Amino acid sequence: MNYKLMLRTLGRTLQLEALCLLLPLLVSLIYRESPWPFFRTIVLVGLIGTLLARIRATPDFYTREGFVAVGLIWLVLSLFGALPFYLSGEFSSFIDSFFEIVSGFTTTGASILTQVETLPRGILFWRSFSSWIGGMGVLIFTLAFLPKVGGRTQVLVQAEATGPVSSKLVPKTSLSARILYLIYISLTFLETVALKLAGMPLYDALVTTFATVCTGGFAVKNLSLASYGLPACEIIVTVFMLLCSVNFAVFFLVLTGRAKQALGSDELRFFLVAVLLSVGLIFWNILPLYDTPGHALRDTFFQVATVVSTTGFSTADFALWPTLSQFVLVLLMFLGGCAGSTAGGIKCARILLLGRCARRSLGRLCHPRSVKVVKLDGKAVDETTLNTVLVFFTCYLFLLGAGCLVISLDGFSLTTTWTAVLACLSNIGPGLEAVGPMGNFAAFSALSKMILSLAMLLGRLELFPILILFLPSTWKRN
Amino acid sequence: MNYKLMLRTLGRTLQLEALCLLLPLLVSLIYRESPWPFFRTIVLVGLIGTLLARIRATPDFYTREGFVAVGLIWLVLSLFGALPFYLSGEFSSFIDSFFEIVSGFTTTGASILTQVETLPRGILFWRSFSSWIGGMGVLIFTLAFLPKVGGRTQVLVQAEATGPVSSKLVPKTSLSARILYLIYISLTFLETVALKLAGMPLYDALVTTFATVCTGGFAVKNLSLASYGLPACEIIVTVFMLLCSVNFAVFFLVLTGRAKQALGSDELRFFLVAVLLSVGLIFWNILPLYDTPGHALRDTFFQVATVVSTTGFSTADFALWPTLSQFVLVLLMFLGGCAGSTAGGIKCARILLLGRCARRSLGRLCHPRSVKVVKLDGKAVDETTLNTVLVFFTCYLFLLGAGCLVISLDGFSLTTTWTAVLACLSNIGPGLEAVGPMGNFAAFSALSKMILSLAMLLGRLELFPILILFLPSTWKRN
Repeated sequence: MNYKLMLRTLGRTLQLEALCLLLPLLVSLIYRESPWPFFRTIVLVGLIGTLLARIRATPDFYTREGFVAVGLIWLVLSLFGALPFYLSGEFSSFIDSFFEIVSGFTTTGASILTQVETLPRGILFWRSFSSWIGGMGVLIFTLAFLPKVGGRTQVLVQAEATGPVSSKLVPKTSLSARILYLIYISLTFLETVALKLAGMPLYDALVTTFATVCTGGFAVKNLSLASYGLPACEIIVTVFMLLCSVNFAVFFLVLTGRAKQALGSDELRFFLVAVLLSVGLIFWNILPLYDTPGHALRDTFFQVATVVSTTGFSTADFALWPTLSQFVLVLLMFLGGCAGSTAGGIKCARILLLGRCARRSLGRLCHPRSVKVVKLDGKAVDETTLNTVLVFFTCYLFLLGAGCLVISLDGFSLTTTWTAVLACLSNIGPGLEAVGPMGNFAAFSALSKMILSLAMLLGRLELFPILILFLPSTWKRN
Repeated sequence: MNYKLMLRTLGRTLQLEALCLLLPLLVSLIYRESPWPFFRTIVLVGLIGTLLARIRATPDFYTREGFVAVGLIWLVLSLFGALPFYLSGEFSSFIDSFFEIVSGFTTTGASILTQVETLPRGILFWRSFSSWIGGMGVLIFTLAFLPKVGGRTQVLVQAEATGPVSSKLVPKTSLSARILYLIYISLTFLETVALKLAGMPLYDALVTTFATVCTGGFAVKNLSLASYGLPACEIIVTVFMLLCSVNFAVFFLVLTGRAKQALGSDELRFFLVAVLLSVGLIFWNILPLYDTPGHALRDTFFQVATVVSTTGFSTADFALWPTLSQFVLVLLMFLGGCAGSTAGGIKCARILLLGRCARRSLGRLCHPRSVKVVKLDGKAVDETTLNTVLVFFTCYLFLLGAGCLVISLDGFSLTTTWTAVLACLSNIGPGLEAVGPMGNFAAFSALSKMILSLAMLLGRLELFPILILFLPSTWKRN
């Protein structure tokens, strides 16, 4: 393990976090709120960051270092990012602050806040902005601006990429990162303008956009998006939630005139079919509860989009919906969006590959000597990738079970317990019952909040970079 | 597909079913109940069986035929086995009768009966006896008595064996089957005697034993085992439920003086650790609810044994236990017993291999070029087996999800819905809430009962022999 380079990388990232904190500082100054929580944190983080960044290190960066770096960076960013919350005095403990910022950086959107509207605007801005930062992955962020952090940065991207198959946009990694980043900023700009035009105040439009494009879901109103009563805004948010659940490479291909290639993606088709099927089922199921089909359809589309994109906004209390509709949403909580998007969950590409693996295994029973490859987008997927996908799925469910065991100590209902862990692991935010769209995570014990924070980090970093931190062999010197 | 041989095999099995039906016929005569439901069924089944068994066929029996035969045999046995229930007039529809007999043959123990005690003794005997027949697998049963059914019977055993790694006891298949069968009968005899000595009436001792050794769980009292109020019987049943969740090869090894080899089994150790850990957690969790630690420990042991063995008897209403205890039981519902036992569930060997696969994949992230094999009992497990285990786990959860989608149409709570499907898929019987230890499956729609019957068959036959029936390529002629 190249500890020096690790510390240097952490230092660079902290410097960047200090820079990011300038924005909420500015917001708190504009709204004449106390700037001290931000000011103190910026000084501390900037100082530690600069000290660490001065460490000289050899640029030997191997797979192991890449994975460990990703895991550690998110942990350390969260530990320091929680400081403004804690120093503001609005959060009852450091663990609560930590939970909330992890929920931000991992774009989960789960909250321990029972009253959102009374909080200072600077604090709420940092909360929403942290999820926007988390959205594209702190590493891609770091990569785009600090391409000289060390050798072998490709490894970092591999560990960070959300999904089983990472296809680079263009051969040079830092250029890829910049393109993704530009798409992300463009989507942010477009949605903010659209929401502003639809009647939202600028501040609300901005924080709502932050929460949408990163598929995070932090709202600045107690009733989330339902509080605005603007159907146009709901439709805009629905569209952008779905857009941001799509592999960002699709936008790049469309923009460079390769729309046909983009739309031929197996995963994209699977995603669209899953969304439309879910909408169809739920719409048919909830129609009798609504006055007009239009309202039912809008609520259905919004709820499907918010869950499959793992955003977690709410416009309707789906706890009141029939069991079938709730069950469809639960399945979407496992599914999540496409690989290479800002969405969480197991990801469409993985579920697709799992299905194809299962089908191949069944076929093999009949014809034991047949040699068949599993394909994605017409190309054969190698056996190591397939094995990793199968293991990923297994780990996902094992971790869900292990998490529930700890959380169940708090004595909430079974459904609250397992959907709380699932909502964190899939980076959605709300689950069902006590943690449903109208609930929050305030009532959990400190231990549960720590475990749920860990679940959010595990889910966001696709399990392995966090799990690897617990493996003794990771920490052996070469 | 060798259709002729398939029909001939079905014929032989039906002949055997007709023979088995003589026993409940005898019971109904002893208790002076109407023998006609049995008599009519025996004539019909015997006739069809004899006609089919006369078909001349070439003895070409390949893997495909083996899997399809297993799936079809269980289906056809259940279709005809439901007749006495239906003809007795005690069941409101053929689907209810079918559900109940599938629940028997698959050793699930889920029931649509709300009142058990008012039923004729002959009918209840057939219900319990069907699960005893199902216990060791109709195929092993068939094999032991009809070893001349066709060539390549080894293939049948492979499809039937419960678990990922089938290790033959002795090289000759039909001899293995007989040894397993002898162990099974010995356990049946021992438990019946023990229960009789502990104070149970002979009829009750016999049907309780039938339900225990096959880990089925059909009771002849509305309150299941709790109604006897005999702690000694509860302890006897606990011991036998645990014994019958252990790979039967262990008994063979112990009986032939190879106890050390038997006790060194990774799976057995894993099973014991899982049981003891669960007992420890639940005991600590429910102790405050009980007057004496002794009663708490007895209830804990019984409940852990009944769930992990997938028997599904009840002595206590664990719906009243704290969330942690319920959650431990839910995890055990997924786990199930050891491979090569009569228990259902995913099986300990598979969970163990899944864990080891995950650990290997994590290690590979650090050392991509390392070549490590996954071992069980010190022997390397080949990659195809590992892949099949991973795919099995995936299919198990996909089927659970798909089943829930259909069942959720009935509008029961989420927990009732998914635990109902899980309880059927893992061949346990009771789930939670409306299908909990004090509930039953009567209120489900006909569609749900069909799907739950399918889930029981899928679970009992380790998914693949049933799934393969839905694959078009299975039905192509060679």
